[in-house]
Amino acid sequence: MANDRETYESSPAVVPKRSFIEQAERLKPVLLQRDEEARQNVEVVPDERAIHGWRAIAASSADTLAPQSFGKGDAVILDFGDHRVGYVSLDVKPVGSPPDAPLRLKLTFGEMPVEVAEPLANYNGWISSSWLQEETITVDVLPCRIEMPRRYSFRYLKLEVLDTSRKYRVAFDRVLCRTVTSADPAQVVPLVHADPLLTEIDRVSVRTLEDCMQDVFEDGPKRDRRLWLGDLRLQALANYETFRNYDLVKRCLYLFASVPDERGRVTSNLFIEPGIIADDTYFLDYSLFFTTALHDYFRASEDKATLQELWPTARRQAELALECLDERNIVMDREGWGAFIDWHPKLNKQASAHAVLIYALKRAVPLAELLGCESAPRFAERLKALEAAAMADLWDAERGFFVSGPERQVSWASQIWFVLAEVLPKEDSRLLMLRLLAERPQVGPTTPYMYHHLIEALLLTGLKEEAVSRMKAYWGGMIADGADTFWELYDPENKSFSPYGSYLINSYCHAWSCTPAYLIRHYRL
Amino acid sequence: MANDRETYESSPAVVPKRSFIEQAERLKPVLLQRDEEARQNVEVVPDERAIHGWRAIAASSADTLAPQSFGKGDAVILDFGDHRVGYVSLDVKPVGSPPDAPLRLKLTFGEMPVEVAEPLANYNGWISSSWLQEETITVDVLPCRIEMPRRYSFRYLKLEVLDTSRKYRVAFDRVLCRTVTSADPAQVVPLVHADPLLTEIDRVSVRTLEDCMQDVFEDGPKRDRRLWLGDLRLQALANYETFRNYDLVKRCLYLFASVPDERGRVTSNLFIEPGIIADDTYFLDYSLFFTTALHDYFRASEDKATLQELWPTARRQAELALECLDERNIVMDREGWGAFIDWHPKLNKQASAHAVLIYALKRAVPLAELLGCESAPRFAERLKALEAAAMADLWDAERGFFVSGPERQVSWASQIWFVLAEVLPKEDSRLLMLRLLAERPQVGPTTPYMYHHLIEALLLTGLKEEAVSRMKAYWGGMIADGADTFWELYDPENKSFSPYGSYLINSYCHAWSCTPAYLIRHYRL
Repeated sequence: MANDRETYESSPAVVPKRSFIEQAERLKPVLLQRDEEARQNVEVVPDERAIHGWRAIAASSADTLAPQSFGKGDAVILDFGDHRVGYVSLDVKPVGSPPDAPLRLKLTFGEMPVEVAEPLANYNGWISSSWLQEETITVDVLPCRIEMPRRYSFRYLKLEVLDTSRKYRVAFDRVLCRTVTSADPAQVVPLVHADPLLTEIDRVSVRTLEDCMQDVFEDGPKRDRRLWLGDLRLQALANYETFRNYDLVKRCLYLFASVPDERGRVTSNLFIEPGIIADDTYFLDYSLFFTTALHDYFRASEDKATLQELWPTARRQAELALECLDERNIVMDREGWGAFIDWHPKLNKQASAHAVLIYALKRAVPLAELLGCESAPRFAERLKALEAAAMADLWDAERGFFVSGPERQVSWASQIWFVLAEVLPKEDSRLLMLRLLAERPQVGPTTPYMYHHLIEALLLTGLKEEAVSRMKAYWGGMIADGADTFWELYDPENKSFSPYGSYLINSYCHAWSCTPAYLIRHYRL
Repeated sequence: MANDRETYESSPAVVPKRSFIEQAERLKPVLLQRDEEARQNVEVVPDERAIHGWRAIAASSADTLAPQSFGKGDAVILDFGDHRVGYVSLDVKPVGSPPDAPLRLKLTFGEMPVEVAEPLANYNGWISSSWLQEETITVDVLPCRIEMPRRYSFRYLKLEVLDTSRKYRVAFDRVLCRTVTSADPAQVVPLVHADPLLTEIDRVSVRTLEDCMQDVFEDGPKRDRRLWLGDLRLQALANYETFRNYDLVKRCLYLFASVPDERGRVTSNLFIEPGIIADDTYFLDYSLFFTTALHDYFRASEDKATLQELWPTARRQAELALECLDERNIVMDREGWGAFIDWHPKLNKQASAHAVLIYALKRAVPLAELLGCESAPRFAERLKALEAAAMADLWDAERGFFVSGPERQVSWASQIWFVLAEVLPKEDSRLLMLRLLAERPQVGPTTPYMYHHLIEALLLTGLKEEAVSRMKAYWGGMIADGADTFWELYDPENKSFSPYGSYLINSYCHAWSCTPAYLIRHYRL
């Protein structure tokens, strides 16, 4: 398969900034590679206590594979011992008469046991089934070494012989995964916490981040494999505390800044191949995270040259967001995808989006002042107006909660973001969080992404014990349920939750779930 | 996919003759390549009068493809206008938003409309389903040019979009087949017969041979894609009258001679990759066809050096066959696969195999004499004994037929092969053929391979009109049924016949069916 490498413009109005693309290209990482072998052969058996109903159990040691032979309908599941992202190769040898027909072989890759247990053909969700990691290949000449050209994200590999012929069977050997990452484990200061569960949560967080750090910060190496701003912001925070790969953050910021739309708006996500493509999805919160991610990058790296070069893009996101206010000075309420915030289907996002804007301006103002930018006083003034408007129109003093939208919805997201935006005095924020935990409004957090913000809001208001116990319950729950890396989705109350219609398509190594490494290390938990 | 190129011995007793392999390697042809475009888009519709119940009808011109776009579940069938053997490539472009998920695309290649109409998954025959020409591929980066690495044999290509995403569709363009062959059409003297049907039968025969001439003479470019001695013998005869590629015949003879078994026996067929491998299937008739094919090659090429070098192998096949006689001097009757002769499940092969041995010795004796070989007188003497034994024990004077096996079976094959072996005086052979045509014994010819021998037996006995009318009925019947190249199997009385359990797996461009070009040209019909 050959690809024409070129910049592919998603809209004629988008004029890519060549110098930014060139800068990003110079920062392209060299990927570290390592050969990982399968560790054992497993069986995946039904178990109603196991996540998604399936458990992998040891069947035989890896060295028993090569002497076995497989005919039509035979299968084996290899366990690589941990989550892997990379390129798979294997030897296939014929056993019996000379092969008088091709071999047809199916390979199914699973991050979780369920993916190699349930037929992927049953998938009926609304996002593309093309993400399901299975391949059927036909091999004309045996023996051979099969080198699969695509990258997979997996721990389990099922090899299934669809057909050989009556005259021969096949044997498999040297099944390898050449893993790839731009994260250098040598840069990570090992963390050994007095609480072994926190040590383990940190370890799995670091593994999650490592496997998502590729040519860019990917959101998930299985799915979607691209650069989302909301994920980048959190990955960068975890990265500063662990791998310290500043250049990869810098590269991603330049990439986002290189393809603004005709009004200067930064997209929520980018495609990197066959050239830099801005997706046509724009979220108010994600665009503003360009501003906050640049702020965080400068704080971590002290790289003022990059700050200066990218500041106009960061400033522009704040300006554009300030154009989205209603007559009350509140961010306009928009149906659907005006902002992302969280996957909860009933969440009204107005209050959260308003809080994100305040949160972003509080980071934009000091940057503007540092750079002597003429916008600084105006941003500071608008910030005050936004805070006042929030207290006037979104704060329901009687209920003691921030409300959102025409139905005056009380959600966890609204409270959490207003705490993170530090709109109330700290003690009032602490009381708000306690009230939130006590009253537990119905529209709760559904993703690790929202859980991250919940934990950080608790830490910010001094509720450290509550933060730690909730982190241990949530991320520790994933570990107890078999996570090698942290998952895109995890609802302890509904473990088969998927916003896509099937847990088969969920990503089980997902960037936005790696933040405990940041939270534990940054807040010295 | 990478292959270790090496000689792979099928049996430790087989010692490959290095010098023969090197000679064959020097004769390896350079394949002629040509880019062929799809000619039109078709629909394949049910039609009970059409072969296998399906007919391709024109739907739109080829240039209407590129402007169309295809989403999940959409499909198009491209018609390349004639049978093609080669490598397919195509442009795929996204239409709509930037592709936010891979493309999963299924490609199904059909020599016949039925192959792109009926689900190949329904195939339930006994030979490997891996021959069914379908691929499912996943494309991560769009736009791209897909270059399929395997060679296909087809006229119809069905492109089926299994999934894109909700945000984009795909368009196809520049769908090309780079055809390959070692047959040079410039060498063929065009034949324009007064009878347009014979002109057409010759043309289709030449196309069949052309598409089977690859790195070696293949039996079928779809299936089995390897070098069978019985097919080689017939292809060589057609080749001498058309493409005149003597080197390719010479190469194949050296290949067969290079990997005899420990007794010097030549295999019925060879695998060429990853190295020269003798299959572990041995047929008495096919081994003897080494001797007759060498005879034919020398007659056509007058290449005495090759005759001398390969004569010991040819002689050895005759010697080994002479060890397979019973106490009556008749080739022993063996169950199953002692000889091939034809696919008929009830055919007793003893008489035919005996006749083939006589046929081969009649070609071995003059070669032995020419080379001054000490075996010449002994072969001549044994030949007489075999003919006498045949007349004593296999000729049933009362019935006027040769009989075979303990049940004294009267089959078409036995009569045909005894006529080809010229055991009876020519007039008696003519009467035998007329009796055969009149009495029509139940065990008849089932393959074009056996039909070839029937036609040649008729020609040999002066029954030219009968030969021509039967050739026109049989091969002309295939043309009327839509053959672009001649088929492996064709039974006018049972058009869905397959010895493999399904016509989906039959080969529709098969070497042993190309012989009308030889018969028409050699016998000046």
